[in-house]
Amino acid sequence: MPALRIIARDRSSRARAGVLATAHGEIRTPAFVPLATAGAVRGLTAGEVAALGYDIVLGNTFHLFLRPGGELIDRAGGLHRFMGWERAIITDSGGFQVFSMGHGTVADEIKGRRGNGSGGAILAIEEDGVRFRSYVDGSERFISPEISMAVQAQLHSDIVLAFDECTPFHVDRDYTARSTERTHRWLARCVRWRAENPGPDSLFYAIVQGGVYEDLRVASTAASVASGAEGIAVGGSLGADKAQMYEVIDWSTRELERLAAERPRHLLGIGEVDDLIRGVELGIDTFDCAMPTRLARHGTALVADPASRFRLAVDRPAFAADLAPLAADCPCPACAGGLSRAYLHHLARTGEQTGGHLLTLHNLTFIATLMSCLRAAIIDGRLPAVAGALREGESPFGVGACADPREGS
Amino acid sequence: MPALRIIARDRSSRARAGVLATAHGEIRTPAFVPLATAGAVRGLTAGEVAALGYDIVLGNTFHLFLRPGGELIDRAGGLHRFMGWERAIITDSGGFQVFSMGHGTVADEIKGRRGNGSGGAILAIEEDGVRFRSYVDGSERFISPEISMAVQAQLHSDIVLAFDECTPFHVDRDYTARSTERTHRWLARCVRWRAENPGPDSLFYAIVQGGVYEDLRVASTAASVASGAEGIAVGGSLGADKAQMYEVIDWSTRELERLAAERPRHLLGIGEVDDLIRGVELGIDTFDCAMPTRLARHGTALVADPASRFRLAVDRPAFAADLAPLAADCPCPACAGGLSRAYLHHLARTGEQTGGHLLTLHNLTFIATLMSCLRAAIIDGRLPAVAGALREGESPFGVGACADPREGS
Repeated sequence: MPALRIIARDRSSRARAGVLATAHGEIRTPAFVPLATAGAVRGLTAGEVAALGYDIVLGNTFHLFLRPGGELIDRAGGLHRFMGWERAIITDSGGFQVFSMGHGTVADEIKGRRGNGSGGAILAIEEDGVRFRSYVDGSERFISPEISMAVQAQLHSDIVLAFDECTPFHVDRDYTARSTERTHRWLARCVRWRAENPGPDSLFYAIVQGGVYEDLRVASTAASVASGAEGIAVGGSLGADKAQMYEVIDWSTRELERLAAERPRHLLGIGEVDDLIRGVELGIDTFDCAMPTRLARHGTALVADPASRFRLAVDRPAFAADLAPLAADCPCPACAGGLSRAYLHHLARTGEQTGGHLLTLHNLTFIATLMSCLRAAIIDGRLPAVAGALREGESPFGVGACADPREGS
Repeated sequence: MPALRIIARDRSSRARAGVLATAHGEIRTPAFVPLATAGAVRGLTAGEVAALGYDIVLGNTFHLFLRPGGELIDRAGGLHRFMGWERAIITDSGGFQVFSMGHGTVADEIKGRRGNGSGGAILAIEEDGVRFRSYVDGSERFISPEISMAVQAQLHSDIVLAFDECTPFHVDRDYTARSTERTHRWLARCVRWRAENPGPDSLFYAIVQGGVYEDLRVASTAASVASGAEGIAVGGSLGADKAQMYEVIDWSTRELERLAAERPRHLLGIGEVDDLIRGVELGIDTFDCAMPTRLARHGTALVADPASRFRLAVDRPAFAADLAPLAADCPCPACAGGLSRAYLHHLARTGEQTGGHLLTLHNLTFIATLMSCLRAAIIDGRLPAVAGALREGESPFGVGACADPREGS
């Protein structure tokens, strides 16, 4: 039985709504996946994340491998039990993080994914794997496709990602081609390791690389499908701007429609409001991104305003005496609790952690509601109208007949 | 009708259990009051604090006066509405904070109350009030008994504290005597201001000063009672060690038993586990302290272990692989959620805010349960046995027949 049960398709795009079955419950797609990089969604308890209606979070193999280590988490019964999260977990393979130590910051900036902190460094990239210096204790460490698979098994990950080289934006076509080929060889090693080491029940996703070159993306998509992976993730450099990013995603999902339409698709590291809407139209099922939670910690709320890139920086002086809530009809603890922009402004200025906490709850509520709206619209055959309205600034809390993300269905 | 309805008294001490009526609901005493210094219990939403079973929090007049200002909070409908907290609020007068800018750090250390941050400075202490430099913007500001009363009225405080000079430990008897006399003159001005400016329904507490000198404490207690204040707070320097602190508190509550046994009593800035137990025996009804929340942010959990001062520093290497919970039977999200010391250790080491959040919830659960145990023991006539057991390390979660702090009664 395929992991993804597609329950509705949009007629004017590649968008689809479905239910993705994992060992830790079903994921209603399209879905956003909050980051739990080091085993916690920043500032929230697992119970709070579940209460927001999320079915899945993303843990990071690289960071958890270095600290506290896969053995301890395995001994605790897996990452779910370790962090008290009963629903599904997808784990990044560590490829992006280890390469971001050497590849500079372009990819970080474009993808909004966190680098490795300071102190780490790549020592050698070899066919076998990557030797690097740990940012935790300065020790020399090694990661490879096999080690990534082994650690993800120790984490009891429900969705395991292949260990890839995340090709950065600033390299040339030749480097990209050679890097993508190595990613495919590493993909084969991941598949082999999993065949030889049966572990906790999990789905395996290949990662499409190929930079901004259509032929390389097409070839990488085909190689990913041919690997037999249960799902496909789109990774690597997606370009210099949104137009190019959408084009790059389009190449992959176009091929996937042809080659493996039923397999689930994940888009790595993308999560701005307009990108989520476009990504859904392009046929992506799941998304992860640091953006909603990171913005919150820096005093910025998500709001239905395309003119401001859907952002409201409550720490700006303009909001010092604004007694309105962030958003009418928003069910988050800040808005539903009657808290004002002035209060959130005050907390941001005072450096009170409650401010970041409330904004995190708000932003994740906003994104959960947005995804729930898009899913309901696909099911109801109204995606073009709903996507258009959301893109133009209609509040997801105001779009009629959208499902409440906190209720299953 | 008196504000405090005493429903039970312990026969072997001055301890009593009661219900303190305020404009925002009843407080079950003895009770601990979490700090919401700048309008938020650090890291928690108001809903989370209420869910832990607390009936009251403490806001800080000094900090809120400087930022965001009493006018804005008044316009928002008071501090309750501003911060989304529907239950009672007691507000510190600002005396402690403004004087801590000039008085050095002894009082801070002993009382565990936060100073004013950096950049502030006392410019002049005059009979009229205190001129100082704001730590927020460097501007020159003035606070006086009248201003403190006016700001507390703007905050819609349920329990208003008199504006006092918090006499530090390192000054001599003569300074203490003169300072205490000024506190009494300021007390009279507070009473007069409140008579002339009827504001939101509130209780007014005088603050007993007098340092570590019995005759001054006795005189200050008598002056506080004579002022007609509805309640009495014990403040100022309480001595160099716990023995002296208990003695200083004893002088006041002994006098209060004689002069005004029915009036509620608050102990300012004290909240270590053994101090709470002793304070209850000495006849204190309510306590506030930064300790439980501050320890949590620094990676320390409260546990039933007197040998370690009731503290467990989860960030210590000893807990790196300890898969036990912080405390058996604890209903907090960390313990009840099956989270281990190893997980909390990991979060502390990684600097994840979720760690401080979970420890804050645990520590406030521990303290709420402790107070609820003591209250139930007074009502059941078992205080000596229960206090003794708690002091010797029996878990408050294990003491039979203790009320759940989250349930009203």
